[in-house]
Amino acid sequence: MRLNNSADVVNYFRGKRHQRNYYVAGFVDGEGSFSVSIVKHPTQKFGWMINPCFQVYQHEKHREVLELMKETFGTGAIYRKSGTHPVLNFSIDSRRSIMERVIPFFERYPLLVKAETFVIFKEIMNAMEKKEHWTKDGFIRIATLAYSMNQQGKGRKYTLKEMLATLPD
Amino acid sequence: MRLNNSADVVNYFRGKRHQRNYYVAGFVDGEGSFSVSIVKHPTQKFGWMINPCFQVYQHEKHREVLELMKETFGTGAIYRKSGTHPVLNFSIDSRRSIMERVIPFFERYPLLVKAETFVIFKEIMNAMEKKEHWTKDGFIRIATLAYSMNQQGKGRKYTLKEMLATLPD
Repeated sequence: MRLNNSADVVNYFRGKRHQRNYYVAGFVDGEGSFSVSIVKHPTQKFGWMINPCFQVYQHEKHREVLELMKETFGTGAIYRKSGTHPVLNFSIDSRRSIMERVIPFFERYPLLVKAETFVIFKEIMNAMEKKEHWTKDGFIRIATLAYSMNQQGKGRKYTLKEMLATLPD
Repeated sequence: MRLNNSADVVNYFRGKRHQRNYYVAGFVDGEGSFSVSIVKHPTQKFGWMINPCFQVYQHEKHREVLELMKETFGTGAIYRKSGTHPVLNFSIDSRRSIMERVIPFFERYPLLVKAETFVIFKEIMNAMEKKEHWTKDGFIRIATLAYSMNQQGKGRKYTLKEMLATLPD
């Protein structure tokens, strides 16, 4: 087998969905991210909106690996990241797509490095499906889980404490 | 299937070598590197030593993914990188192991992002097998190929021109 460039590999994977999916799991385990941002939003019940998102970044010269992601999940958008670096972002942020496409995928094709992060991500998604974030206790539980992901809230605008302090009694 | 942590995933892959290998290819395509360093070495024919190396870095809290690499390739060493960051390095730098374990692996389980880099790496390895670096023309060809990898020699101590200028006539 001679596969000398990325186009060959994309073609090779066309007839090998199962193999491609293990490759995708491995790639995502290195380069992907599961995150749950919580942003100020005055019209939401507690003044904050919870946004789960699955993303993969890649240098624009390797767009084909993001196209492979899009083909694999059957959804998602690829766009250029703002800023000076020529980086593309593949993301799935619709809750429906995450529930129907992303979560079942990684239950079948498991992650190793991001295994724990994925468990928390799934816990948050399931809680939101049950509308737990519509109650104050549920909102606090989900926010606490979200902040426990990806280096415990590092890089977030507000600390968990600051955010929770704004919630009405 | 419930795989809630990395140990579960390592176990899961025990009976699934083929699937594991696709996962490994995907992971390496994101996080691995193929490189050929050229370092000053007075006893070598042209005063330089050519060192091909296959590596994967990872935060020390995810050592298990590097153990999976080691199991997959059946060789290689895991060590802590010097410096302040808690980073582990898995590397295979023996030419024999690269020829026998690394190259056949990625011919069977293809890379997408690193497809072109791997082709150059293989070309260098094959040239060294034929001892092309023992002739001046061969050395120049191999060095030029090496410098064309990984951002065209960025981060190297010497430019290609500087290095080639030291070669005897």
